[in-house]
Amino acid sequence: MSYPKWNLSPDRFFDPEPAQRKVARELYESIADLPLICPHGHVDPRVFADEDYSFGSPTQMLIIPDHYVFRMLYSQGIPLEALGIPRRDGGPVETDHRKIWQLFADHFYLFRGTPTGVWLASEFVEVFGIEEKLTSETAQLIYDQIEACLQQPEFRPRALYERFNIEVLTTTDAATDTLEHHRRIRESGWHGDIRPTFRPDGVVNIDTPGWREEVCRLSEVSGIDITSYSLYIQALEQRRAFFKEMGATATDHAAESAYTEELSPAEAESIFQRALKGQATRDDARRFTAHMIMEMARMSIEDGLVMQFHVGSFRSHNRLIYERFGKDMGADIPLETEFTRNLHALLNKYGNDPRLTFIVFCLDEDTYARELAPLAGHYPAMRLGPPWWFYDSINGMIRYRDLVHETAGLYNTVGFNDDTRAFPSIPARHDLWRRVESNWLAGMVVRGIIDMQDAREMAVDSAYGLAKRAYRFG
Amino acid sequence: MSYPKWNLSPDRFFDPEPAQRKVARELYESIADLPLICPHGHVDPRVFADEDYSFGSPTQMLIIPDHYVFRMLYSQGIPLEALGIPRRDGGPVETDHRKIWQLFADHFYLFRGTPTGVWLASEFVEVFGIEEKLTSETAQLIYDQIEACLQQPEFRPRALYERFNIEVLTTTDAATDTLEHHRRIRESGWHGDIRPTFRPDGVVNIDTPGWREEVCRLSEVSGIDITSYSLYIQALEQRRAFFKEMGATATDHAAESAYTEELSPAEAESIFQRALKGQATRDDARRFTAHMIMEMARMSIEDGLVMQFHVGSFRSHNRLIYERFGKDMGADIPLETEFTRNLHALLNKYGNDPRLTFIVFCLDEDTYARELAPLAGHYPAMRLGPPWWFYDSINGMIRYRDLVHETAGLYNTVGFNDDTRAFPSIPARHDLWRRVESNWLAGMVVRGIIDMQDAREMAVDSAYGLAKRAYRFG
Amino acid sequence: MSYPKWNLSPDRFFDPEPAQRKVARELYESIADLPLICPHGHVDPRVFADEDYSFGSPTQMLIIPDHYVFRMLYSQGIPLEALGIPRRDGGPVETDHRKIWQLFADHFYLFRGTPTGVWLASEFVEVFGIEEKLTSETAQLIYDQIEACLQQPEFRPRALYERFNIEVLTTTDAATDTLEHHRRIRESGWHGDIRPTFRPDGVVNIDTPGWREEVCRLSEVSGIDITSYSLYIQALEQRRAFFKEMGATATDHAAESAYTEELSPAEAESIFQRALKGQATRDDARRFTAHMIMEMARMSIEDGLVMQFHVGSFRSHNRLIYERFGKDMGADIPLETEFTRNLHALLNKYGNDPRLTFIVFCLDEDTYARELAPLAGHYPAMRLGPPWWFYDSINGMIRYRDLVHETAGLYNTVGFNDDTRAFPSIPARHDLWRRVESNWLAGMVVRGIIDMQDAREMAVDSAYGLAKRAYRFG
Repeated sequence: MSYPKWNLSPDRFFDPEPAQRKVARELYESIADLPLICPHGHVDPRVFADEDYSFGSPTQMLIIPDHYVFRMLYSQGIPLEALGIPRRDGGPVETDHRKIWQLFADHFYLFRGTPTGVWLASEFVEVFGIEEKLTSETAQLIYDQIEACLQQPEFRPRALYERFNIEVLTTTDAATDTLEHHRRIRESGWHGDIRPTFRPDGVVNIDTPGWREEVCRLSEVSGIDITSYSLYIQALEQRRAFFKEMGATATDHAAESAYTEELSPAEAESIFQRALKGQATRDDARRFTAHMIMEMARMSIEDGLVMQFHVGSFRSHNRLIYERFGKDMGADIPLETEFTRNLHALLNKYGNDPRLTFIVFCLDEDTYARELAPLAGHYPAMRLGPPWWFYDSINGMIRYRDLVHETAGLYNTVGFNDDTRAFPSIPARHDLWRRVESNWLAGMVVRGIIDMQDAREMAVDSAYGLAKRAYRFG
Repeated sequence: MSYPKWNLSPDRFFDPEPAQRKVARELYESIADLPLICPHGHVDPRVFADEDYSFGSPTQMLIIPDHYVFRMLYSQGIPLEALGIPRRDGGPVETDHRKIWQLFADHFYLFRGTPTGVWLASEFVEVFGIEEKLTSETAQLIYDQIEACLQQPEFRPRALYERFNIEVLTTTDAATDTLEHHRRIRESGWHGDIRPTFRPDGVVNIDTPGWREEVCRLSEVSGIDITSYSLYIQALEQRRAFFKEMGATATDHAAESAYTEELSPAEAESIFQRALKGQATRDDARRFTAHMIMEMARMSIEDGLVMQFHVGSFRSHNRLIYERFGKDMGADIPLETEFTRNLHALLNKYGNDPRLTFIVFCLDEDTYARELAPLAGHYPAMRLGPPWWFYDSINGMIRYRDLVHETAGLYNTVGFNDDTRAFPSIPARHDLWRRVESNWLAGMVVRGIIDMQDAREMAVDSAYGLAKRAYRFG
Repeated sequence: MSYPKWNLSPDRFFDPEPAQRKVARELYESIADLPLICPHGHVDPRVFADEDYSFGSPTQMLIIPDHYVFRMLYSQGIPLEALGIPRRDGGPVETDHRKIWQLFADHFYLFRGTPTGVWLASEFVEVFGIEEKLTSETAQLIYDQIEACLQQPEFRPRALYERFNIEVLTTTDAATDTLEHHRRIRESGWHGDIRPTFRPDGVVNIDTPGWREEVCRLSEVSGIDITSYSLYIQALEQRRAFFKEMGATATDHAAESAYTEELSPAEAESIFQRALKGQATRDDARRFTAHMIMEMARMSIEDGLVMQFHVGSFRSHNRLIYERFGKDMGADIPLETEFTRNLHALLNKYGNDPRLTFIVFCLDEDTYARELAPLAGHYPAMRLGPPWWFYDSINGMIRYRDLVHETAGLYNTVGFNDDTRAFPSIPARHDLWRRVESNWLAGMVVRGIIDMQDAREMAVDSAYGLAKRAYRFG
């Protein structure tokens, strides 16, 4: 039987114009095999701690944990239950993984021309060696093939880490995390470089559900009985030191808005006490987060951890889905964001200090040229993160460089990060970035904006050097 | 005498790169002759009700009713009076249509590279068979040619409807409209498929001038004496049923902002009573509209009418022009718009219901990638309308796909609608869309993002299938 | 010794696709040698007043006065002191110009692909005849070459003015300026056409530091003792008349927001009196500026001076830098801007008057398509200025036309202005505009949107005619 085949062009994502394509290919070839630097992501460290870890079924690996995949299916009326997404109340969901896979294949046309579609094609072909396009007809055949792969030792996470040529990979971990998996990895003697990242949102944003429980946990893990704001700060500093000891080079912070403000110690203490009593207001929460972001910048100057700031997502917009399935269900929607006024306090206090590396990510592309590039193009401490989430895509990357480069240049940006839970998609994501960046540089070469010598150096920096230096690896 | 000629390239609007152009042409040829689906527009149903209807003079057909045309002339200092636009006070305006036409021709250079320029060129050549470019020199010659055409039976609206290969065309009609012209069309036995759309803005937005008179009219046509909010809702439901009976498959709603909020019945009643007394405040109006948009979504779930929502125009920005000439005079200016927070109430209540099709149009392209694509890419009920008004243009369409597609995919969008009063421009508008879409798909093909098989199916959906299915025709 | 060379392609900034490139080149060649119209800029008139004026050292000419250059170096951690930027307190800064130049050359890679990089390359090659790329190795060699040039009479400003083929150049001057340099230029008999522009921000924005001193100076230069709002208005009108007499054809106004509002005479007087006493509030300042912008439009209608309005910069965002070095230090950051509501008062009062030319510049590209093009495409008085500051760049220009043209057309825009302090960079800036515009028009030609005849006329208008007519020169 003959089914339609994937057709991964060796020149994919390059401009069709032959002169530009030639230069793009040349640049791409010069960087395609550089090791992968993965300075920000959400892979579970457990997958490396257990050397026999398996990804389970194709459905378990590729559909159930990937909200990029199931939100698109949901948008077209397919219930999450039918996709096997577990309900919080333990209610019934589809458990037949082949049936879920078939449903996915029946609707795979929804992903045409989307990043998910492109990553999956690349993953199928290059990780699993599959030749046929995923359709209703080929669904079970492909399921068989992936299932067979996943039973081989070559498809254990550690083996893939090596095959993918990863140089370093960081995870994202709560401030209260004991980093046990990271400890097991280190103790195992495996040479893979897996590092934690300090993400204290759960203890910093006082309006997070379960904040008080998190603070109790922070007391426990730090051994500091957090009864005051200053003990709270001490505990955070102590956790940062622990993360650093465990290999962390960075922290990460999320907020709905970029607002920063320095509270007096008395104000901070009184908001903190209200929060402990469950009496904090919405405005308290807003100001406390604004203040803590500044505190985190101060600590970064002191301990040298690079600071990442992810801004502008309205989390769990769909209450029904949140109540039934929880968070991270594809219902986080970007918000309009403002940086010029909101970062004024932080940048004025810490932005001139070259010891700080403050990397900003945003979901509002309108701020790229208007606010972020001018800020990053002025303050020594500030850098601009790569296009994030919805913008981690071909067009998202093209717009990013188009809007950012002329003001901020290349060297106020920090290369790529894959920001993914989906470990097997990592090479596809970096490859896409490298191709799009090569094509961007080639576009400037053929337009006489830069010469080939400059382009070559910029390509290596974009693919490898910028991320490695910005995150202070090695 | 030899004048410069129009030069309508068969490859117009395609990328010049030969490989992409070849694919674009192939895709375009596969869809160029598909029937036109016109699910949203402003053609007067009268033109089809009267089988001998004539468009009048070239000036009456192409200049006087078209605010796209006369606003550009006005922006360069030509008074609307000189263009024959009727004044509200009946004051003198130019009545010599040849003189107006000459003025238009003298300034036709203003439209170079604009959608209006491109549509008109296509209309002149393909509808009226004119060869010469419109200039000061050719003005009267071309006037003669169009005038001669308009006297032929082949240029009656019904004949053009057939020549244009229209499969279905909808009009936009007030809730209080008796749909008399639609009734006449149906009774005439003509096979053209002309359908009304239910647009209740005049009775829903309580700050519309003349709102109370409109509510009286609504009482009359519905036979329900509207003395309370609940009778008002009943009357609206009854009108929707009547529109549906007359062939409507959709409703349409306009608002300055996308704000939605559900009022309690008591609040709704008390605002409604204040409005009846002419005592409603600005905030009452804002909240009442926000509430009624939600009510309309509820009704759509119940009666199956597709719901369109057009957001973000500051109507009649120029008071002088409004006072002298009325509304729709080219002085409606877009406003910055927010959807993530504003649609929260509506989408949380109705967005998970697949019986609802809620199509959003906006005039703030910044929301495409940031808000609309993520919302449409999650909620089963929501779809994104095509680029609207100022963005119904080559670059507007390119930006739309560039910004929307990677997150929402093709299938959370609804194809094209021409949204025009200018019936003879309809083929030009659809043709432009089909060309630009073919070129967009070709761009993805030659970049290896999609293959030709996928592109072919997407082209047909974009040109025909998406609109037909979204609007529930046939 | 052989160093890498600059490679200024004769086809630079053109699309690589051969058909488009050919048309772009043809259009560019037809306009490349047109005289330069420089209707808005910041060149110091002193450089023309003194016929022996020299630009000093290469460092003095190219680095110390150019915040585009030093802000990028600062963003990467190089202190401004090390670049010889004078401190307000007279504290020590680097004085060895060769050492500064070396530091600049060592970091010249930061400017790859930026407008500054492109302008400087063009300036080095075409103004100074330098062949080698600027690198650590060639730094001193190139310093020598530029230094040698600057000692030649051919590199005096007046000689360069002629060599650059400038037809008219305007400066920007405070309302209180005596225009002494302009007077000297006129009296010198030199035929260069250097004109002042009336920029009254210092006396109009009552929250400007030193406002009262500026008003005293205004009293002095006008001979009107400004004790009341109406005398203040008289003094401003008198200064405008003086500027006009001295050759000015335009005024210029800067504001953080585009807000306009007409105050009653009593309100204006009472805010003015509070300001004289140093008691004006922030809101007073906001409303007074809003009102004065409207007053300036009124005066423009009366005296015929073209009105420029530059909106949306958060000046001196970095307090440390402001305190140490003053303003214009590369720390001005754009703000989100709104025009539809904010210009409502001004445009309703004066926007229908064709005697007024009101040219708007902004730093928020989101408003191009959404607000500015629709406003300029309707109101007879309004025009849209070219891409400003961060957007005076290849991509900035491409986005500008992409977003503006389809709604506003070419003739509601006003061509180019270089807006620069850096006199020797003027030809590079105009050349870049002419190339990018030629390429834009060529793109429309090869896509069949306009024909070659139209493109040729549009090219001349873009490069020369629009600016000359909009600013009422000659």
